[in-house]
Amino acid sequence: MRMYDIIKKKRDGGELSAEEINFFIRGVTDGSVPDYQISALCMAIYFKGMTVRETCDLTYAVRDSGEKLDFSSVKGIRVDKHSTGGVGDKTSLVVAPIVASLGVKVAKMSGRGLGHTGGTVDKLEAIDGFRTTLSDGEFLRQVDRIGLAIVGQSKQFAPADKKMYALRDVTATVDSMPLIAASIMGKKLAADDDCIVLDVKTGSGSFMKSVENSRALARLMVDIGKNAGKKMVALITNMDRPLGYAIGNSLEVIEAVQTLRGCGPKDLTEVCLTLAGWMLSLAGKGTPEQCKALAAQTIADGSALKKLAEAVAAQGGDARLIEDPSRFSPAAHVHSVLSPAEGYIRRADAEAYGFASLALGAGRNTAEDTIDPAAGIVLKKKTGDLVRKGEEIATLYAGKASLFGAAEKTLLAATEIGALPPADEPLVYGVVE
Amino acid sequence: MRMYDIIKKKRDGGELSAEEINFFIRGVTDGSVPDYQISALCMAIYFKGMTVRETCDLTYAVRDSGEKLDFSSVKGIRVDKHSTGGVGDKTSLVVAPIVASLGVKVAKMSGRGLGHTGGTVDKLEAIDGFRTTLSDGEFLRQVDRIGLAIVGQSKQFAPADKKMYALRDVTATVDSMPLIAASIMGKKLAADDDCIVLDVKTGSGSFMKSVENSRALARLMVDIGKNAGKKMVALITNMDRPLGYAIGNSLEVIEAVQTLRGCGPKDLTEVCLTLAGWMLSLAGKGTPEQCKALAAQTIADGSALKKLAEAVAAQGGDARLIEDPSRFSPAAHVHSVLSPAEGYIRRADAEAYGFASLALGAGRNTAEDTIDPAAGIVLKKKTGDLVRKGEEIATLYAGKASLFGAAEKTLLAATEIGALPPADEPLVYGVVE
Repeated sequence: MRMYDIIKKKRDGGELSAEEINFFIRGVTDGSVPDYQISALCMAIYFKGMTVRETCDLTYAVRDSGEKLDFSSVKGIRVDKHSTGGVGDKTSLVVAPIVASLGVKVAKMSGRGLGHTGGTVDKLEAIDGFRTTLSDGEFLRQVDRIGLAIVGQSKQFAPADKKMYALRDVTATVDSMPLIAASIMGKKLAADDDCIVLDVKTGSGSFMKSVENSRALARLMVDIGKNAGKKMVALITNMDRPLGYAIGNSLEVIEAVQTLRGCGPKDLTEVCLTLAGWMLSLAGKGTPEQCKALAAQTIADGSALKKLAEAVAAQGGDARLIEDPSRFSPAAHVHSVLSPAEGYIRRADAEAYGFASLALGAGRNTAEDTIDPAAGIVLKKKTGDLVRKGEEIATLYAGKASLFGAAEKTLLAATEIGALPPADEPLVYGVVE
Repeated sequence: MRMYDIIKKKRDGGELSAEEINFFIRGVTDGSVPDYQISALCMAIYFKGMTVRETCDLTYAVRDSGEKLDFSSVKGIRVDKHSTGGVGDKTSLVVAPIVASLGVKVAKMSGRGLGHTGGTVDKLEAIDGFRTTLSDGEFLRQVDRIGLAIVGQSKQFAPADKKMYALRDVTATVDSMPLIAASIMGKKLAADDDCIVLDVKTGSGSFMKSVENSRALARLMVDIGKNAGKKMVALITNMDRPLGYAIGNSLEVIEAVQTLRGCGPKDLTEVCLTLAGWMLSLAGKGTPEQCKALAAQTIADGSALKKLAEAVAAQGGDARLIEDPSRFSPAAHVHSVLSPAEGYIRRADAEAYGFASLALGAGRNTAEDTIDPAAGIVLKKKTGDLVRKGEEIATLYAGKASLFGAAEKTLLAATEIGALPPADEPLVYGVVE
């Protein structure tokens, strides 16, 4: 078998066999297929696509490219939730403890943020002492004992995806539905949970800008997961506007804690309860509606917040920050963004808000950048709100006051104020089962 | 400027600016653009094409990527002929001395064969002592003094093309019209001749299988050359069947000498006189018809053959082989291929005949392979000939008798014999001026 023939076959619109896909991914993993052939094939796939069968085979090859954890020592059902990434998306910090507090295990491996989107691991590292790297034994024991652990992905985890993604990122081949699906699901399936709820973000702040594309990606990923024997569901959720009010690492942990206390933003709370409801339902706790009510109950009785504090403490983090988020170190500098006009906020472009937060130090442009955990944005007004001229629409937080100018400019350019209220947009566009 | 943006722009069907193309080719040449981005861009160009303007800019960037010879010391007009490559194509060995014998300079840089196609440099190296590598000074002085020199391309010649071609060859991005045109014309223009006649082969034995594609490639290359101030013409010639009777290195030199003696194959002689006529005409010697008659005269009076012997001697070759080709060392083993049936030869697939010759040792699969100069095929019957069962249709030559089996099988499978004569095919499909 030769890579040349595989590239040519795909270039000419052919369907690759499982053997050809496995040959390719083995070569990516062991380095025997050179980078220039990987990028050429990715570009051919960009143009010619892949069938569902090819995408499944690619996903399973990625899944099998690295090490796997042996969960046989962990009792109970394990459920995962995966978001395709957004701005202000702190749902994992809320849903994971809700679900775990009801006895369903959450053994979460999360990513870091890149570009305008944040990552759960970065958010957790805003908590003093929190260790996002555990040994396999520590991770398994914590999941078994308290039902919840959240760590970063290790280097040996689906390494073929790591290699391919790095190349796709610099060769303009990220935006390919089968490659996206295989990348996400290859990693998810390697974690070997029993049930997976996908949160496919749609709109400006996500990497799927249209609902149709998001739905197609959701359908593909659900099919890949089911075909691998998993219980699967995907929600299509709104990421045209930031979720909640907070964007930035410690700011988002604080908002997640507020949500677990029952006083979080309405949109965030609703999305979290819906996601948690589906996670619990897949795990056999009842219908999605029944489970949503169960989830709400864990907020009302404080058990979900307690579970988060327990997990934070188990991973070395300062749990007092969860009990009293006012203890988080504030940013050195604060700046108010005032409304230049009176009217309704008709649009707050999530992607641009993400870039503004990045400019304040809350994110990274390249994998090597370091993050300022206290930097970011707290919205004072959201899409649909009426605002007076001169009224504060957002508070910016940064380590250096010199960062405010560019961020404010970006934020104001992305905020549309007008005489008429905007049309309502759903929080959840649909469910793909 | 970033390669990522250039790849993305082409991927999305955009037209690259001259600055972007120059940035890319500079990066290919100095190594600052990594291989995986080169191959990704080549694949995007494969799918999205290039405008004539982009292709011109790419060609000129390739032309300017390396060293150039200073021809100011060479008097007179220099004309080049370039073939896109075929099977049994020894026209350069015939037309170059014809043209040079009439006082038009030929400073030829030729390639080596790869796969089923032969290369002029390999053929000349079948002549004992012939040096295909000359110093710049030797090359220039020989062209000025006797009007003809043929050498291989040096490493410093259009290096961007060398690098790109090597990558295209292993990433299935060779078959792209703009990339082919820029590769051929980038090298041709770097040689800086005054006039260029392109011999664009069409059919099975060439890499353009259809007349339409050959014509489009010819048009594109002629426009690129004219736009660079060159006198240009392209002939579209038949490569569905081998040209002449001989395939293989010394076998082709022998046939070229026979042609220069006036007793060569009819098809080869006709194509050579047509090409030489156009070369002379571009150089100002008269109309193509008048020049074709002039060319025929140099065969009749022996001056073209004398010019070849002169050039061979000047480059250290044994000119007695040109005067008496029976002095070429014969292959160690000879094998007759007999016709399995009676009838007309309806088809002798040029590509397959090229591969049969390769199997006998006359060509190379990879650039590192060595060539057996005496190996190859001499056809006894050509397409359109009537043949009796058991009559010899070809003679095979090889260094080892064990090579005959596979070559004979390939050759017979590619030879169609039937009751009806085949339809006539033109030798020259057209002229693109």
